[in-house]
Amino acid sequence: MTPPAISRYPVPALADLPEDIRARILAVQEKAGFIPNVFITLAHRPAEFRAFFAYHDALMEKESGLSKAEREMIVVATSGANDCLYCIVAHGAILRIYAKNPLVADQVAVNHRKADITPRQRAMLDFAMKVAVDSPSITDLDFAALAAHGFFAEDAWDIGAIAAFFALSNRMANLIAMRPNEEFFLMGRVPRVK
Amino acid sequence: MTPPAISRYPVPALADLPEDIRARILAVQEKAGFIPNVFITLAHRPAEFRAFFAYHDALMEKESGLSKAEREMIVVATSGANDCLYCIVAHGAILRIYAKNPLVADQVAVNHRKADITPRQRAMLDFAMKVAVDSPSITDLDFAALAAHGFFAEDAWDIGAIAAFFALSNRMANLIAMRPNEEFFLMGRVPRVK
Amino acid sequence: MTPPAISRYPVPALADLPEDIRARILAVQEKAGFIPNVFITLAHRPAEFRAFFAYHDALMEKESGLSKAEREMIVVATSGANDCLYCIVAHGAILRIYAKNPLVADQVAVNHRKADITPRQRAMLDFAMKVAVDSPSITDLDFAALAAHGFFAEDAWDIGAIAAFFALSNRMANLIAMRPNEEFFLMGRVPRVK
Amino acid sequence: MTPPAISRYPVPALADLPEDIRARILAVQEKAGFIPNVFITLAHRPAEFRAFFAYHDALMEKESGLSKAEREMIVVATSGANDCLYCIVAHGAILRIYAKNPLVADQVAVNHRKADITPRQRAMLDFAMKVAVDSPSITDLDFAALAAHGFFAEDAWDIGAIAAFFALSNRMANLIAMRPNEEFFLMGRVPRVK
Amino acid sequence: MTPPAISRYPVPALADLPEDIRARILAVQEKAGFIPNVFITLAHRPAEFRAFFAYHDALMEKESGLSKAEREMIVVATSGANDCLYCIVAHGAILRIYAKNPLVADQVAVNHRKADITPRQRAMLDFAMKVAVDSPSITDLDFAALAAHGFFAEDAWDIGAIAAFFALSNRMANLIAMRPNEEFFLMGRVPRVK
Amino acid sequence: MTPPAISRYPVPALADLPEDIRARILAVQEKAGFIPNVFITLAHRPAEFRAFFAYHDALMEKESGLSKAEREMIVVATSGANDCLYCIVAHGAILRIYAKNPLVADQVAVNHRKADITPRQRAMLDFAMKVAVDSPSITDLDFAALAAHGFFAEDAWDIGAIAAFFALSNRMANLIAMRPNEEFFLMGRVPRVK
Repeated sequence: MTPPAISRYPVPALADLPEDIRARILAVQEKAGFIPNVFITLAHRPAEFRAFFAYHDALMEKESGLSKAEREMIVVATSGANDCLYCIVAHGAILRIYAKNPLVADQVAVNHRKADITPRQRAMLDFAMKVAVDSPSITDLDFAALAAHGFFAEDAWDIGAIAAFFALSNRMANLIAMRPNEEFFLMGRVPRVK
Repeated sequence: MTPPAISRYPVPALADLPEDIRARILAVQEKAGFIPNVFITLAHRPAEFRAFFAYHDALMEKESGLSKAEREMIVVATSGANDCLYCIVAHGAILRIYAKNPLVADQVAVNHRKADITPRQRAMLDFAMKVAVDSPSITDLDFAALAAHGFFAEDAWDIGAIAAFFALSNRMANLIAMRPNEEFFLMGRVPRVK
Repeated sequence: MTPPAISRYPVPALADLPEDIRARILAVQEKAGFIPNVFITLAHRPAEFRAFFAYHDALMEKESGLSKAEREMIVVATSGANDCLYCIVAHGAILRIYAKNPLVADQVAVNHRKADITPRQRAMLDFAMKVAVDSPSITDLDFAALAAHGFFAEDAWDIGAIAAFFALSNRMANLIAMRPNEEFFLMGRVPRVK
Repeated sequence: MTPPAISRYPVPALADLPEDIRARILAVQEKAGFIPNVFITLAHRPAEFRAFFAYHDALMEKESGLSKAEREMIVVATSGANDCLYCIVAHGAILRIYAKNPLVADQVAVNHRKADITPRQRAMLDFAMKVAVDSPSITDLDFAALAAHGFFAEDAWDIGAIAAFFALSNRMANLIAMRPNEEFFLMGRVPRVK
Repeated sequence: MTPPAISRYPVPALADLPEDIRARILAVQEKAGFIPNVFITLAHRPAEFRAFFAYHDALMEKESGLSKAEREMIVVATSGANDCLYCIVAHGAILRIYAKNPLVADQVAVNHRKADITPRQRAMLDFAMKVAVDSPSITDLDFAALAAHGFFAEDAWDIGAIAAFFALSNRMANLIAMRPNEEFFLMGRVPRVK
Repeated sequence: MTPPAISRYPVPALADLPEDIRARILAVQEKAGFIPNVFITLAHRPAEFRAFFAYHDALMEKESGLSKAEREMIVVATSGANDCLYCIVAHGAILRIYAKNPLVADQVAVNHRKADITPRQRAMLDFAMKVAVDSPSITDLDFAALAAHGFFAEDAWDIGAIAAFFALSNRMANLIAMRPNEEFFLMGRVPRVK
């Protein structure tokens, strides 16, 4: 049986990719043990690939007032609002690992108001969701609500920019029908036995 | 009187910017006669700036089955759906110039169904709007509707990717309350007298 | 090339119109330098024409706690919510002229929360938008919010009645595909040189 | 016990009204046996009153391809979509009388798709509802769907204009909290015994 | 003329029903003077019938901090939000009778904010409407708003459970196109003359 | 550390429950290895508990043209639309087990259009989603779309009734903040090693 397509578009062979992109993908594969489909499917368009991951890294890898787990919460919550299967499943896996919590990703994807998170994280996700689904209504009050939890201007940019970047990412994944790797579904759900 | 703020965030002085970013901005200023606010306001975050404009150029400057005017139509129509003042005004100006049409930008921003565009362009904007506001519902039928107008798979990616990129851009502009330069409001509206 | 249709319906010749309607239209033409399409297209139905403009004048020409520019702001903001090209373009032009401000119409049409208007005007537009898009939810609290800015009961009627009248007007324009005159697109955007 | 207010605004005494308005109201009272509250509450603003009823009569009293019962169906269906108690109750009563049918008004107010009406009337209400709640999306296809049931251009204007006028009327009634007269609730429900 | 269908599905003859269901239906007929269509149409599926009415009785017949009229208000308001003709008409009749008020059912079905009910009842319906149309957003604040009017935890369950049960009931009625009995339309509207 | 609450309401001790309810719960515990929280939290109200599970069993345990996995697909898809964490997680687990497919539950919960299901199952879920979120719009065309895939009248009732029952269930779970048991998150994701 042929495996299901991971994209509506042709998926390049690693060997055919520009050197920098192949190197990036091999590095991810080395670390994760498999190639997440977002890499190989977006590699269909090298220039867009480079910009996409440069943007991703600028937001998700930088020093920030937000922990890596908190950033993934933003991804998962807003991807839930946008009904993006790839991002919910793949970033849900990453969130479970960063947060060392097998439950929080499903909670946040469905309804962040009832997730096992702190009130500060709830305020963070309220702001992110407003950027994701109703950005014209953002006013000073939304920034004030963040500040009441110790999130100041640069944090607000971080939160909003992650929500904005995944507005793009979710639409690309839905456009090309990007399929999540099977590995992600289980990752971080089972305590590793030493 | 102090001029109105062009961003909720600090706006860097040109002199303080990294060389590559300053060069890019000076080149735009040279060409346009002024610095569009999207450049100087996003320069607050150099790494994000670089990724943003790399992405923009990968979509808007490349060879494509879409003319430059058509690409700007996508920007203006989807920014209209997202109530993003900066993008409607700035890209509306660019659309008027590329299309050599002083009316089409306002038409497309409000209701692309009634704009002075071709049926093919209407199909293009129908697809772009679906990516912008209802991407989970995209199915093969949407690709077939494009194909009936001669837009095939790579064109569909172009259309969808522009809509997706401005989903990000609109949210960033709304987040930081980016203000359009006054120059844009009039640009392309008045026939140039020789 | 035939000019584009300005209505789905037959457009009467001035000479065929009842005397009172022709007189009204000629007076507008005298003042504006051209005949705004709303006059000649609605003249297809003389009795409705008379009621429409009687209603318009009763709201827009009367003495009121609202300036003429403020009344046009209400028209432009609510027409933006209703995606009515004719009203955004035509009343946007009038707003620019009354407000002596080339920017405010586009701002208000897209997102009144970020327009260059006073907090009092923002409260006025919040109320107008609620009448336009969610009138069953109006409660005493909405009247109180107006009163906090010095708009009392008769002002609230004025604001709400303009929003209600343009709920009608926007739907008529969308129904007949009323096309804005080209003159409006530029009007009030260029400072008049003396 | 004081009777409940019929408007948020002062209700004029008949004796204080301009002669033409008083005459109109007395004529209605003569015919109906009571004064429908829409007359006396809108009389608070004589100029608007005159335009409102001139518009109403131009649409509802004229010769038309639509029967009077069909016109009231449009009022009731679109007022249902706009959650306007006054118009549902008052025009529901009129519809019951014109249609000689005690059930159709409640059916049409809740869900016109399942009402005891003809397929032609269902097409009429589909069009009216689109004008009421989604007028920017109206295209040639909507006119074609009407034509398939024998409703041609002037009929489409009649249907759309009634929906548009009650978009205004519903908003005014919700704005001023217009209360339906108790008489309307029962009218047309009980077969008259001869 | 054949009477209109009361369901998309076959309607069982009383004689063919299981004894317990027939007894229940005969008891209702005895009391009401006719068989409400919800009984005979749902009897098409005996096991579901039994569970449906057991659930109904557990909520609507029990001792409660809510009066029977208040419970029917919840049914009518949420059925209005769900556009369910059967429930609006049938439970509207019951509400008129329990409340001894010929007006309140139509008021509550259209817009509970303006109905002739107490502020406490308005808070009750605000909560019920949130359960009906936006249950994921329920937070402690909603329970606190009820408590401010003397509705505590068990009352909140009662209110929410009635709204939830009629979410089911409304969907079943819409699914099978359940038709209200004609008797309900008039019931409780006319003062009984002794 | 106290474990997180599984309900906003008191959770009864098994020993305090009526015999029939305790027996039912012990039987479930016997079979599943733990007590799913829906049982013990709803047992707070014995009469409602009995009706709830009688209804559940009437739909989910009966002979039907739908397989058990298909019925769970309906539950998961409509619970996704209603943002109900408990039902997505618990019924997602059951769906994985019945379908012997570790991926399908997450797919269906997010976007049934792209799940690994048959076109017939997609039609089934299209119908279920319409019952869940837009039941007033159901017409003969929806039944015809099912019939084209071999789902006839009684199947349509089954599909719609499951969607309707979980409209109730989702609202109850959101009302009481029902928490999914941790066991469900992993269940059916890992192939059992023999």
